[in-house]
Amino acid sequence: MKADLDRLMAEREIDALFTLNSEHEDPYRTYLANGADFSGMVFKKRGEAPVLISGIMEIDEAAKSGLTVYSMEDFKFSELAKEHKEDRDAAFAGMYRNIFAKLDISGKVAIYGVGDLNVAFGMLRALEKHLGDVITLVTEPLADNIFDRAYETKDPDEIARLRAIAKRTSAVVRDTRAWLGTMRAAGDAVVQPDGTPLTIGDVKRYVRGKLYTQNLEDVRGMIFAQGRDAGVPHSAGEDDQTLQTGQAIVFDLFPREPKGYFHDMTRTWCLGHAPDEVQAVYDTVMEVFDRSFEMCKPGLVTSDVQRMVCEFFEERGHPTGLNTPGTAEGYVHSLAHGIGLNVHEAPYFRTHGGNYHIQPGNVFTIEPGLYYPEKGYGVRIEDTVIVNDDGTLESLTDVPYDLVIELAD
Amino acid sequence: MKADLDRLMAEREIDALFTLNSEHEDPYRTYLANGADFSGMVFKKRGEAPVLISGIMEIDEAAKSGLTVYSMEDFKFSELAKEHKEDRDAAFAGMYRNIFAKLDISGKVAIYGVGDLNVAFGMLRALEKHLGDVITLVTEPLADNIFDRAYETKDPDEIARLRAIAKRTSAVVRDTRAWLGTMRAAGDAVVQPDGTPLTIGDVKRYVRGKLYTQNLEDVRGMIFAQGRDAGVPHSAGEDDQTLQTGQAIVFDLFPREPKGYFHDMTRTWCLGHAPDEVQAVYDTVMEVFDRSFEMCKPGLVTSDVQRMVCEFFEERGHPTGLNTPGTAEGYVHSLAHGIGLNVHEAPYFRTHGGNYHIQPGNVFTIEPGLYYPEKGYGVRIEDTVIVNDDGTLESLTDVPYDLVIELAD
Repeated sequence: MKADLDRLMAEREIDALFTLNSEHEDPYRTYLANGADFSGMVFKKRGEAPVLISGIMEIDEAAKSGLTVYSMEDFKFSELAKEHKEDRDAAFAGMYRNIFAKLDISGKVAIYGVGDLNVAFGMLRALEKHLGDVITLVTEPLADNIFDRAYETKDPDEIARLRAIAKRTSAVVRDTRAWLGTMRAAGDAVVQPDGTPLTIGDVKRYVRGKLYTQNLEDVRGMIFAQGRDAGVPHSAGEDDQTLQTGQAIVFDLFPREPKGYFHDMTRTWCLGHAPDEVQAVYDTVMEVFDRSFEMCKPGLVTSDVQRMVCEFFEERGHPTGLNTPGTAEGYVHSLAHGIGLNVHEAPYFRTHGGNYHIQPGNVFTIEPGLYYPEKGYGVRIEDTVIVNDDGTLESLTDVPYDLVIELAD
Repeated sequence: MKADLDRLMAEREIDALFTLNSEHEDPYRTYLANGADFSGMVFKKRGEAPVLISGIMEIDEAAKSGLTVYSMEDFKFSELAKEHKEDRDAAFAGMYRNIFAKLDISGKVAIYGVGDLNVAFGMLRALEKHLGDVITLVTEPLADNIFDRAYETKDPDEIARLRAIAKRTSAVVRDTRAWLGTMRAAGDAVVQPDGTPLTIGDVKRYVRGKLYTQNLEDVRGMIFAQGRDAGVPHSAGEDDQTLQTGQAIVFDLFPREPKGYFHDMTRTWCLGHAPDEVQAVYDTVMEVFDRSFEMCKPGLVTSDVQRMVCEFFEERGHPTGLNTPGTAEGYVHSLAHGIGLNVHEAPYFRTHGGNYHIQPGNVFTIEPGLYYPEKGYGVRIEDTVIVNDDGTLESLTDVPYDLVIELAD
């Protein structure tokens, strides 16, 4: 959690960190700035609270963080920009020099944030060129930087928000399930009460309407994929495709509260009836979902859970990333990922590498799946779960798991 | 426009460019990949069409680009990841080496994209360390990279989309204006027909509902700010604040079609009546809006228009960034910015520096404003306009400019 950042900085000998100015959504900035919605910079010296530096137009939004806020003008940015008309890098470097002096920052400094890479690389090189006497820029291992380690666990405020979003997301999916149950079969096609064919586009519009009433955003784009598309984990589904009875449908919804936290869940549905083969694969996935749920106890290394799932599937004849690296059939992804301001964050559940341990305060998904695009189906079941202080696992997702949705007569 | 990229690469002696794998929304990737929604990489060798490289889970989404798509597995990523369990950088560098060999890429290579800066810096250093024999990574000047230059003008497909989004956004704002006209005054407060006070939160919910029906996303967060908040250009407005008659309201809406193009427009409104001082400032802003619209002809340097606006305001006693760099009162921002897959992109209209010329195919905002937070108001008028092939300027925004919205009796 955020309170761990100073300890993590000390362990890694990082003296200060900062985010760059960026128009892009930046979970690092959101996290450090207590959710304030501005596009400026955040500086954090080890052992001290973050300090925000904003353009004048956003200064009031930055102030909502409750943190100390400076304007870029406090560091003479406009003067420097005028002085270095044809060399913006020099103008920015001058401003950074003023900032580092004011905040008494020097030594090993790490840059975080989400932003324009071409711009950021230029800035990185400008800082190394102009400010090498003050700071040394450090990088950290992939998927193991200090924020990955902080994101691993959530504090009580974050948990309360994640619970609330889980509840609202679950309501949307239950509503969608109930609404689909009002549809009818017409031959193999699924039609609306008035006889119009029901398309994936219709379903997504319905879901977006429900998300709107719950004040949730479909910012990353939901998956509602049928048949072969359900067999390719991140195929989003085709809007103009009519729903068919007896086809596997993978519905993966990962909405966000405005500028905040995500939920992530998946159900696999068959409308009207399920083919035996899909039912059997669904039962297999559901069984390993339950086993994973039982297995995730504090202290366990996450890759051990991933390995258990791979071996479970392999024993039943399904290829996995363990015995068939890079396979596009069978079990093709990892079991889980943490969730927070990022839809995918630590802890990660990799087959190889990474040393994340399950611990209280973790909020992660459990999402086994089996994919057979050539056979025309895929199955995934996903809840978002929390490891409570007493070590018990609790699902935050509250939606029935049943495969078949009965249609109206 | 996109067709200019090869010429721009030749002018800057860039042999190839690529985007990094990134979960974050990346307008560069969207642009290169013809709108395909995947999180993998795009490589473009000068003179050749972009090539996409995707994880296997998203390969079908990547294929929607119509471009050549490879899987990361074609470059042995899973094998390399297994071989370099504890050194992901080496695994990625190995994959990049395979990619550069297959695509026959070497020489000066530029990285673009939007992504995690800590991860990207680590990757940048890994590439410099492991692949220095093949490529030299180059950076470009801030606000003047080859995409900035490509984004300057839009091709006919982009223009058709921008027109459609403008039309839908305008409908939302006209609906909102009409809906506000059904409200009543109760003393200084604005109340709904049932007598409930009307809050900014109520208005934003109404607007989001209208955006939903138009299939537009409020992904960046609209501004609906009243009184003092209207005087700080990027204050978003407080949800629990009740609307008051006779207060300046700045309503800045910049929605996006899902994963696509933006529109951007602003109106300033007073409910019931406008104080003389606000009306006078509004008239001044409207006058320079019209002058800017007249002035923007092909060939003109954008900073000359910005300078004209500053001088116009200064002659009338308002401070600007020209005579008072860093001012928080008066005219505090630039006149305009291009718009496309980014809400702010080239051409830029800076007071100092930047050599953007107005030309056919430009789509940019015109948005003069005056801000007096201490006096409790701000005014901004903004349309998105296009420079047509015959050099004429045309507004894509279709909403009345009138300041006062009459309330119901």
